[in-house]
Amino acid sequence: MNIVCSQKELSNKINIVQKAISSKTTMPILKGIYLEASNGKLKLIGNDLEMGIETHMDCEVTKEGKAVIDSRLFGEIIKKLPESFIEIELDDENNITISCEHSEFKLRAMDSMEYPQLPSVEENEYYEIEESVFKDMIKQTVFAISQDETKPLLMGELLEINDSKMSLVAIDGYRLAIKSGDIKNSIGNNKVVIPGKTLNEVNRILSLDDKVFKMALTSKHALFLVDDTKIITRLLEGEFLNYKQIIPSEYNLKVKVNTKSLLRSIERASLLAKEGKNNLVKFLIKDNVLVITSNSEIGNVHEEVNIELEGEDLEIAFNSRYLIEVLKIVESEEIVMEFSTNVSPCIIKNVEFDDYIYLLLPVRIN
Amino acid sequence: MNIVCSQKELSNKINIVQKAISSKTTMPILKGIYLEASNGKLKLIGNDLEMGIETHMDCEVTKEGKAVIDSRLFGEIIKKLPESFIEIELDDENNITISCEHSEFKLRAMDSMEYPQLPSVEENEYYEIEESVFKDMIKQTVFAISQDETKPLLMGELLEINDSKMSLVAIDGYRLAIKSGDIKNSIGNNKVVIPGKTLNEVNRILSLDDKVFKMALTSKHALFLVDDTKIITRLLEGEFLNYKQIIPSEYNLKVKVNTKSLLRSIERASLLAKEGKNNLVKFLIKDNVLVITSNSEIGNVHEEVNIELEGEDLEIAFNSRYLIEVLKIVESEEIVMEFSTNVSPCIIKNVEFDDYIYLLLPVRIN
Repeated sequence: MNIVCSQKELSNKINIVQKAISSKTTMPILKGIYLEASNGKLKLIGNDLEMGIETHMDCEVTKEGKAVIDSRLFGEIIKKLPESFIEIELDDENNITISCEHSEFKLRAMDSMEYPQLPSVEENEYYEIEESVFKDMIKQTVFAISQDETKPLLMGELLEINDSKMSLVAIDGYRLAIKSGDIKNSIGNNKVVIPGKTLNEVNRILSLDDKVFKMALTSKHALFLVDDTKIITRLLEGEFLNYKQIIPSEYNLKVKVNTKSLLRSIERASLLAKEGKNNLVKFLIKDNVLVITSNSEIGNVHEEVNIELEGEDLEIAFNSRYLIEVLKIVESEEIVMEFSTNVSPCIIKNVEFDDYIYLLLPVRIN
Repeated sequence: MNIVCSQKELSNKINIVQKAISSKTTMPILKGIYLEASNGKLKLIGNDLEMGIETHMDCEVTKEGKAVIDSRLFGEIIKKLPESFIEIELDDENNITISCEHSEFKLRAMDSMEYPQLPSVEENEYYEIEESVFKDMIKQTVFAISQDETKPLLMGELLEINDSKMSLVAIDGYRLAIKSGDIKNSIGNNKVVIPGKTLNEVNRILSLDDKVFKMALTSKHALFLVDDTKIITRLLEGEFLNYKQIIPSEYNLKVKVNTKSLLRSIERASLLAKEGKNNLVKFLIKDNVLVITSNSEIGNVHEEVNIELEGEDLEIAFNSRYLIEVLKIVESEEIVMEFSTNVSPCIIKNVEFDDYIYLLLPVRIN
């Protein structure tokens, strides 16, 4: 292999594939980046066997070939080289020489024959989705994924497709987050569970604009095609919770409140809640005022927030961390909260649309 | 005590005095901020018995008094309150009420009678120094302070005053840093050792402009007066190393080099040096080229930097971390390096002036 390429572009591409490389892997070859040069292109791959990222860039190929180089060291070297052209050469003894202006590095490469191939997900039909739409869906649900390794399925999100509508659903046993969006085409319904780690990486490479990317789903894998980059992930196996059953269809009281005012009051109240280590904040909903209180040995706090109330009074308590996480990512100025009793879930919704739904279990109080 | 003050100003002032409060103290009262309201002013103090910070702000005092409140909690509460007016009230049972708009916190205060007084450093005469001058002196030497707790004196810096000249000197056994500056007046010579932690805090409150601040030195303490803020610190006791003896007066070769080019080459070479865990980079100085090399099991690197050389050739090795730390804070475009042999110290200087001197011991190589 012998190539010449731009330092800046190579450094960007290394950053992309490094996201799929785990430093904790027990297979040393997976700590490497796979490079393959042919037809004026350099292909880069990172792979941790659950998720693989493949990307491509233009380069001058004097001699075609393949190499696997330690990802961390390769990334650091390329990042520190001057913004110029870099030559990368592999000799027959698997020694790599990286040259750039007055710098020359010689490194041992790993055996590229040992590198595991990415699973092939060759689909003829792709879902077409606007990048910003899917990015928002991930951002507004991914925080509610479970971190509990004994429930592997809840460490992913359900992606449900019905005609040209899709939803992402995350549940961790205490709360549920749903966010919906549109697909640009309609190629059939589907229901898969995508690992949270993959969704975080997809979020990272998606842009904020309305450019369209492609997605394919097989029974075992999902494929995301964004510009020159391909993310392939294993799907999580098993039956996801029937989330629709959990969402109450009726309520006894409905509160309309300014999102930021509520967030700031809960954040302040949680300063004392934290001292008590249980994160507990109490709500007293009455007469168009929401009173938030919290107590610990060191003191107590009383916060008042103006609301519009429909229905009865209620006293209910929450883990403040869960409320804060939801209120921080909700983008609408006002939200609606629906309550039934102080032991049944609270629903948080957009005032006008149903594009997101959050459900939160209360903490039982005496 | 009963006061009303601005949220923003109080939050700023808390930030300043918190720097003197250690969360690791064994005296619970020292985890608090001392507040004293009188004559339209609020005084705030933080103190860890080595260093104390006192600052003042305007406020409306309805009732004079003193209180000590848990620093972390008080700081977090004030920071999270809206940008408005805050009322702070202490009752006879030592309960503090903090009110602001729709928020009310009740906290237990600590006994203000228990709070240790700051040592009084009342001097009639003060050294007058431009803030930016002393700030630069600290910034360009403080990295060379020893972190070795068995050598407490080297965890501080020597401040030496001769007429209207002053120098800060840091030594850690492998390197030495000296930076000099002017005093605006001349009130007598002095030689004290100031703890590194204090210098870091003084650096933080000094601005980048040429405003003058005041400094007083007694046999046990130093006092820094910057605007409304007073930093009082214990001095370190003992005889500081006679650093002038260590600095060689002659050299066999002198190298003039661009600071950034040298820094970047050493940073790249150190990527492989780090792999070998000894940080070792080798210099070969010959014919107006400085060749930097480093080896480890994983590979090797060869870097070339153009220099102007006066004198003989030399092969010498350094710990790359020490070189990188010096080159990162040197502000001049070019530096001069003076060498004698490959076992004697290297001197790094400004090309034109003698306002800074760095000395670095080489690593012995075979």
